[in-house]
Amino acid sequence: MSKAIILLSGGLDSTTVLAIAKEQGYECYALSFDYGQKQRSELESSKKIANKFEVSEHRIMKISLNDIGGSALTDNNISIPKYSDSNEIPITYVPARNTIFLSFALAWAEVIDCQNIFIGVNALDYSGYPDCRPEFIKAFEDMANLATKQSVEGDKINILTPLISWTKAQIIQKGLGLGINYSETISCYDANANGEACGECDACVLRKNGFIKAKINDPTRYQ
Amino acid sequence: MSKAIILLSGGLDSTTVLAIAKEQGYECYALSFDYGQKQRSELESSKKIANKFEVSEHRIMKISLNDIGGSALTDNNISIPKYSDSNEIPITYVPARNTIFLSFALAWAEVIDCQNIFIGVNALDYSGYPDCRPEFIKAFEDMANLATKQSVEGDKINILTPLISWTKAQIIQKGLGLGINYSETISCYDANANGEACGECDACVLRKNGFIKAKINDPTRYQ
Repeated sequence: MSKAIILLSGGLDSTTVLAIAKEQGYECYALSFDYGQKQRSELESSKKIANKFEVSEHRIMKISLNDIGGSALTDNNISIPKYSDSNEIPITYVPARNTIFLSFALAWAEVIDCQNIFIGVNALDYSGYPDCRPEFIKAFEDMANLATKQSVEGDKINILTPLISWTKAQIIQKGLGLGINYSETISCYDANANGEACGECDACVLRKNGFIKAKINDPTRYQ
Repeated sequence: MSKAIILLSGGLDSTTVLAIAKEQGYECYALSFDYGQKQRSELESSKKIANKFEVSEHRIMKISLNDIGGSALTDNNISIPKYSDSNEIPITYVPARNTIFLSFALAWAEVIDCQNIFIGVNALDYSGYPDCRPEFIKAFEDMANLATKQSVEGDKINILTPLISWTKAQIIQKGLGLGINYSETISCYDANANGEACGECDACVLRKNGFIKAKINDPTRYQ
């Protein structure tokens, strides 16, 4: 049974990725980050989901991306914007976040002798973040295969992105087929302390439209 | 005046890199990591050096690589080995350390609008760590140029490695010419609380041999 690390935020996409990795027969290790995000309820959500999917281990790494700032998700002086159908990279983009998350996954992978890292990036129904694009993932994988002792010793590292070219509706349909209860996942950038979604930020609107297009009743708990 | 971030451990190599970046006219920002290393005195050393070189800002990011483990530098259950002239990657290698450090530098670079990141890697008088090799650095730079908003907007990110093909003796000669007092730097993996070097670990032996080959009196404070 091959091991896999799954980057798990507690949102719709990463939860679906965990379910897919389980379905594919991997022994799953979940990795979440307490990175100074304002939205704290996603961490609680990630714990419940990791538990439900019976991962071998769930780690929450603490890193202070709020010290670096530059994003509405981490900086208390920048408010979360409502959805706008713009081509610009939004202020919710967190500088180098996926690069940092994948780097920690790479370190942990080396220690537990694992060659597979799953990340729920999507380049279709997404916010235009540069570090969600296939060309970024490919470049990270190339770099990873020169970075570590295990890569030098001949173990190929795979960065796996099963959702990258799916619509949000397709992701939801796949996840429902795998038994996910999406009311337990939190995608909202501005959820309240009870984990209830705002319904108006980019993440909420992309998610909401996914349920509409999939013709499935939206189980999200809104404020 | 272009900005540059310099990864600064407080050791001989990174201090020389900071001096070189200053000489080249960059406005310097120093970045150090409290990553759970057993050897704590290097952090004090990095503060003094950053201060002496009058950097615009010195940040010490706290990340718990000791939670990930897998290295003699972070794991209290693994002792620091003495120097051995082996071809194997030694147990002092920290999984994905340079990938993680460079990723944080990339994030900070984006926030301060900086396109230059200096790192004191060396692939000649070194311990064989995979993430010190030119091919790793090139792959990281390629990845970085797809990872962030500033790269998408056309600002090229440069990962600069002035020491990569120098001998330790050449590094020392260059640094002395730039006014570095190497007694203030700490390279040892096993220094005591006073910052005095063991003289027997890989880092000490490579450094000591550098002074011998440069025919310069070794100012290192040994135990």
